[in-house]
Amino acid sequence: MRRTLSSTLPEHVGETVRLEGWVHRRRRLAAVTFLVLRDRAGLAQVVVAEEAVRRLVEGVGEESVVRVTGTVTANAKAPGGVEVTSPAVEVLSTAQTPPVELWRPTLDVSLPTLLDHASTTWRHPRRQAVWRLAAASVKGFRETLDGTGFTEITTPKLVASSTESGANVFGVEYFGRTAYLAQSPQFYKQAMVGVFERVYEVGPVFRAEPHDTVRHLAEYVSLDVELGFVDSHRDVLAVLRDVLAGMVASVRENASEALALTGARLPEVPEQIPVVHFREALRIAGAEPDEPDLAPEHERALGAWALAEHGSDLLAVEGYPAAKRPFYTHPQTTPEPDSRWTNSFDLLFRGLELVTGGQRLHRYEDYVAALTGRGESPGPYESYLETFRYGMPPHGGFAIGLERWTARLVEADNIRTTTLFPRDLHRLTP
Amino acid sequence: MRRTLSSTLPEHVGETVRLEGWVHRRRRLAAVTFLVLRDRAGLAQVVVAEEAVRRLVEGVGEESVVRVTGTVTANAKAPGGVEVTSPAVEVLSTAQTPPVELWRPTLDVSLPTLLDHASTTWRHPRRQAVWRLAAASVKGFRETLDGTGFTEITTPKLVASSTESGANVFGVEYFGRTAYLAQSPQFYKQAMVGVFERVYEVGPVFRAEPHDTVRHLAEYVSLDVELGFVDSHRDVLAVLRDVLAGMVASVRENASEALALTGARLPEVPEQIPVVHFREALRIAGAEPDEPDLAPEHERALGAWALAEHGSDLLAVEGYPAAKRPFYTHPQTTPEPDSRWTNSFDLLFRGLELVTGGQRLHRYEDYVAALTGRGESPGPYESYLETFRYGMPPHGGFAIGLERWTARLVEADNIRTTTLFPRDLHRLTP
Repeated sequence: MRRTLSSTLPEHVGETVRLEGWVHRRRRLAAVTFLVLRDRAGLAQVVVAEEAVRRLVEGVGEESVVRVTGTVTANAKAPGGVEVTSPAVEVLSTAQTPPVELWRPTLDVSLPTLLDHASTTWRHPRRQAVWRLAAASVKGFRETLDGTGFTEITTPKLVASSTESGANVFGVEYFGRTAYLAQSPQFYKQAMVGVFERVYEVGPVFRAEPHDTVRHLAEYVSLDVELGFVDSHRDVLAVLRDVLAGMVASVRENASEALALTGARLPEVPEQIPVVHFREALRIAGAEPDEPDLAPEHERALGAWALAEHGSDLLAVEGYPAAKRPFYTHPQTTPEPDSRWTNSFDLLFRGLELVTGGQRLHRYEDYVAALTGRGESPGPYESYLETFRYGMPPHGGFAIGLERWTARLVEADNIRTTTLFPRDLHRLTP
Repeated sequence: MRRTLSSTLPEHVGETVRLEGWVHRRRRLAAVTFLVLRDRAGLAQVVVAEEAVRRLVEGVGEESVVRVTGTVTANAKAPGGVEVTSPAVEVLSTAQTPPVELWRPTLDVSLPTLLDHASTTWRHPRRQAVWRLAAASVKGFRETLDGTGFTEITTPKLVASSTESGANVFGVEYFGRTAYLAQSPQFYKQAMVGVFERVYEVGPVFRAEPHDTVRHLAEYVSLDVELGFVDSHRDVLAVLRDVLAGMVASVRENASEALALTGARLPEVPEQIPVVHFREALRIAGAEPDEPDLAPEHERALGAWALAEHGSDLLAVEGYPAAKRPFYTHPQTTPEPDSRWTNSFDLLFRGLELVTGGQRLHRYEDYVAALTGRGESPGPYESYLETFRYGMPPHGGFAIGLERWTARLVEADNIRTTTLFPRDLHRLTP
């Protein structure tokens, strides 16, 4: 007999089926014992009346893995309107008593317990649901890009020099010399624009963050996009808009139950994400006009403004000051040429920064000038800069941190709860 | 005017279009100059007659990035039956002379040149095509699994202990202690079977291979699959069969031009991949019956046998000796119980090992016994073993090395030519 998943039981009323899954909960009443079985599709209620089977079920702890063969019976009072009766039960694997009570509706445990026992705590239906939102989001990310001429790439995580931010990089003992873990695929994805024009990568990035905050991880998943033949960062923002819409649509389509279970609030993604210039953003947020960056309280004020003014969860701030952007950022050409500002943006989601993106320099000599202008030597960058010697189109891109995205959807207090096995200053296991 | 891609020119005969791309080649004849423009969709022939534009085009080196505005004109002699005439040409980015001649039909350069200038050499149409096969394969891998109840996961690449093979592991300076780069997501994907039942991951794995061979990389992309509720490794092999069929179908659908350009030979994936037991494989290969493993010449002999006997490019060898498999491998139950052998397999593709897979142990006490039986202490494995304390179904999985797969398709001499930026004993750039 083939296995039946819990979610399809209503299609099998009157039939004998085989269920396989975990003992989610047992409940002994006077005349019967209820066994709630959990499989990847959900929960199923099994009603055990026969005395020998009752003893068996009562002796098997939660999380044990069982095979149940019984009759699907309609019962309006049962969850989903069906239950399995007259079951035979076979134990496939016996569990010790788990460190947390997974059968409770919510998993009310401390953060260390949640993370220390991640391989067990992710079994809880509401925890599972958080990851299902992430997985569905990634699927939507890829599908959107696959449908618009992008090529998926994979780039090395072991690199020869730390380029992007200098500090906060992990060193690796590499055959007698030191390598580094890539903080982003930035230069590699740019080089691949020279090959495929439009590329994306989903992969780990590594930040040796010495700070213990609720927003930072030492390793996270970056959803990276880069595309050529843009007029400015506005073309990049348009792709970001479509990608976010695709992620939201995929969550609705592929993770609707997870959405309900977590109570996640998806953004409505407007046809055009509203854009304000950095100068204007300072004014709206009530900041001093010479502030070089937006503080968290400014971002919150802008989020509130976007909702009130545009009815939008999303707001793009463009034109960040050149001094606050990486050296490869293109000076401002849009809305008007002004090299104090840049063709870059941050995307705020409900008043919190979610994505950074923009147009990059595309001429070799501009890179050399930008580096020397910052007092850096182009030498260490040479292997990255080769591509700009041999013809690169105007291009730009962005990166979405997967965990940060998921955290925003479920309004998580701590980003550590949105990745399967978080890594931070103190945590390297499980 | 919106940009038109080279591949769609035949739909625009008589219209004025804007092309954007790289100067792939220039050819001066007596009356006209041909400009071959390359974009992500292919090549386009531009015919320049006007003297001023001829001088401009002749002065612009190969790989410069240009915008061409002209008329699409039918010409049976032109590639694809169309060319662009009366063009205006604008240079977006000027290239220095590239280190290789990308306009030649084949890129006949040494391996060091090919790899040292990877960001440039990947621009060659036949090189691009190799990666397009890889990208289409990954897409097929995911789509097959997404369609059969699998959940995508991402697991940490920074881990606390080297478990799988002990040696050949990279150490990372991690906030004052030593972490390691994961050699595979093995235990994490098993733990996630306890949550989602069926999981996959596409991600980098790291091997500090001290050997300089044509088959090994220090970092490669692993396509990992793990699923629960299997009867034996045969169920795992059935999923592998479907995955390979999906990868092949995706290449045909999404990379047909790359297939033609590279001359790659896709396998026909039979409904059932033929299976022979390890003992029988030794006999077929003419090896001694007490050999503990298959040597490369044995695998070649088996490949020839599979083709002759079954008309199949693929052959699974099951029942490898326990001593030659990792400790987490399940003892043989199929075709019959015999603990000298295991429920594991290797998949040979044209006589070369492509995939290793099998059923794993699923009970905590079996892990403890297996480790102590090999003289290892379970201590360092404890954080991985937790999941087996709390109920795990019989499960198994496999891993496909993406670069190895692509190398087989294009019959590459060296696996370094099938990944965008290879890493090995000597190479850490570009």
